[in-house]
Amino acid sequence: MVHGESGDGIGFAVVGADHLHLFSIVGGLVGGGARPVAHVESGDLIAGYASWQAGSEARTFDDVLADPDIDLVVTVGVPDERGAAAIAALEAGKPVLSAKPGVTTRDALHRIRELVADRPGRPWTVLFTERFENRATRRAIEMARAGAVGRIVHVTGTGPHTLAAESRPDWFFDPARSGGILVDLASHQADQFLALCGSAEPGGGVEVAAARVGNVACPDHPGMQDVGSMTLLAPGVVGEHRVDLLSPRGLATWGDVRLMVVGTDGTLEVRANVDVAGADGAEHLIVTDHEGVRRVDVSGDEASWADDLLADLADGGERLMTQDHVLTVCDLTLRAREVAVGWGTA
Amino acid sequence: MVHGESGDGIGFAVVGADHLHLFSIVGGLVGGGARPVAHVESGDLIAGYASWQAGSEARTFDDVLADPDIDLVVTVGVPDERGAAAIAALEAGKPVLSAKPGVTTRDALHRIRELVADRPGRPWTVLFTERFENRATRRAIEMARAGAVGRIVHVTGTGPHTLAAESRPDWFFDPARSGGILVDLASHQADQFLALCGSAEPGGGVEVAAARVGNVACPDHPGMQDVGSMTLLAPGVVGEHRVDLLSPRGLATWGDVRLMVVGTDGTLEVRANVDVAGADGAEHLIVTDHEGVRRVDVSGDEASWADDLLADLADGGERLMTQDHVLTVCDLTLRAREVAVGWGTA
Repeated sequence: MVHGESGDGIGFAVVGADHLHLFSIVGGLVGGGARPVAHVESGDLIAGYASWQAGSEARTFDDVLADPDIDLVVTVGVPDERGAAAIAALEAGKPVLSAKPGVTTRDALHRIRELVADRPGRPWTVLFTERFENRATRRAIEMARAGAVGRIVHVTGTGPHTLAAESRPDWFFDPARSGGILVDLASHQADQFLALCGSAEPGGGVEVAAARVGNVACPDHPGMQDVGSMTLLAPGVVGEHRVDLLSPRGLATWGDVRLMVVGTDGTLEVRANVDVAGADGAEHLIVTDHEGVRRVDVSGDEASWADDLLADLADGGERLMTQDHVLTVCDLTLRAREVAVGWGTA
Repeated sequence: MVHGESGDGIGFAVVGADHLHLFSIVGGLVGGGARPVAHVESGDLIAGYASWQAGSEARTFDDVLADPDIDLVVTVGVPDERGAAAIAALEAGKPVLSAKPGVTTRDALHRIRELVADRPGRPWTVLFTERFENRATRRAIEMARAGAVGRIVHVTGTGPHTLAAESRPDWFFDPARSGGILVDLASHQADQFLALCGSAEPGGGVEVAAARVGNVACPDHPGMQDVGSMTLLAPGVVGEHRVDLLSPRGLATWGDVRLMVVGTDGTLEVRANVDVAGADGAEHLIVTDHEGVRRVDVSGDEASWADDLLADLADGGERLMTQDHVLTVCDLTLRAREVAVGWGTA
């Protein structure tokens, strides 16, 4: 049952605990007023989770699905397990909040598409944290959509990450389990491009023009991918995206994530996590237009993904993003993986 | 005749004066010790040139070609006229220094390739000013080639420019005369990518994987191109390039030109003309590697293109760049134009 119009009091269960996103996602939900009712005892991080959220009870997945006090299933398992968890939850009538990537196979996406087709709102949410947890990225997208730099012409999105091989579980090095670098990491860039340039039609009018993956610095794991690129097109817009696991150790954060939007009347540039050799802190947004160059202070913006999500669950709304948006991002990254050629090859 | 081992005293003639690059090119030559012997009276800027270099005599092109005191023909004419000027000079046995683009057609490039094939040194030079007049760009390329960030994996080069339509001559709006935006503007990015990643084999091992051109903001000139993109590949390297005429009026310079080199061990970032919302001045080079983030001061570097060029002319060397480099850059941008599809289309 859903409690109140704001979604305050919604009960949730955690099914799968294999990525640190678990803590920011649950932190957001609890901060928004949701209740950690239960968790399934699986995943490398579940012990830490259980001690953090001591009110959450260990249950079987079947018990979770049968419990009417659980309004939302949260899955942060190994990527290739998230699709099955989401499908089971949706089949049991429960909405799902998944870490990205939401699915790693076409079959899983197809089944989820069937399950959400006739339901109101957004039963299946994938949280693209590089946007929803970064106020500069959110504000840049809002400004661009509102025409702040004229018509959008070109987008560059880059998502470098630290490899930190010693701290990664085995599944991280297996594309069959992680989904591969385009499905896993570039889902953020697909999300941002679609949010920037997508139309209201199903699929948003966005297509994949080219993609590449490679292994350039991980000889111990020859099957894994540590670099990927993806060209996305929208009507009148070209988007070039790069993801990698090459962030050097001298960087003060996990990745110098950037977003550059070129419009007919200016540019919006986001330096999401760090402004290298520049200003302190994170969430940098720089606007260059016909008036001049200026930084936009986003520190007063609400970081409200959980409020929007919980309100959406309460009333069947699509404030945070539409169901079609989620499906389309996953479709685009699967498509990119399907058409990807080797790094540096045509 | 060539005067001295340094090239000091080389006499040159200007044939074609239609772009402001004329003044920086001749300024460099004179600063390097070359002598402005003559000029042909053609081009919108020739009157200003003649009054600036009062020692230069007006001549016919035939007289220039016949004069043994002229060791170098400098052409900064309308782009589609530069190839013919270069061919005539090379046929007369005189080396050529051209503004970019050096040619706008395959036929002209083919003929020049024939003419330089059996001659030592680099009889045909095209000056790619975004590298040779920018010490941060030069240093970044030198560092990257020396392995400062490990093996190069990805390159992003962007060359936005101010449209300044009111100050542009008619030919600027006609791709048949300018060469189009990829041949004209993106020649800089092709030059930099080849300098970064090219091998010693003819053609440098670089190919064009994709290209796009469009007109997004110039409805009064529907035939012109104001945006272009180009994907270049080298073994193990993907290069994404964008050029445009969309620099907003609030930018303090003509273009926020950038170069980002991602290697297996760090990144080199050039903000060539301006560091928006950052440090003052131009020629910014930021290195991020396993040691940390730092700015590299390039203000003490020599801006020595003219010295290298004149020395090359004196002894048949290829210090500034090789003849094959010039030919390959022109081939790549012509190829990009040939394969280009419409903006935002697959």
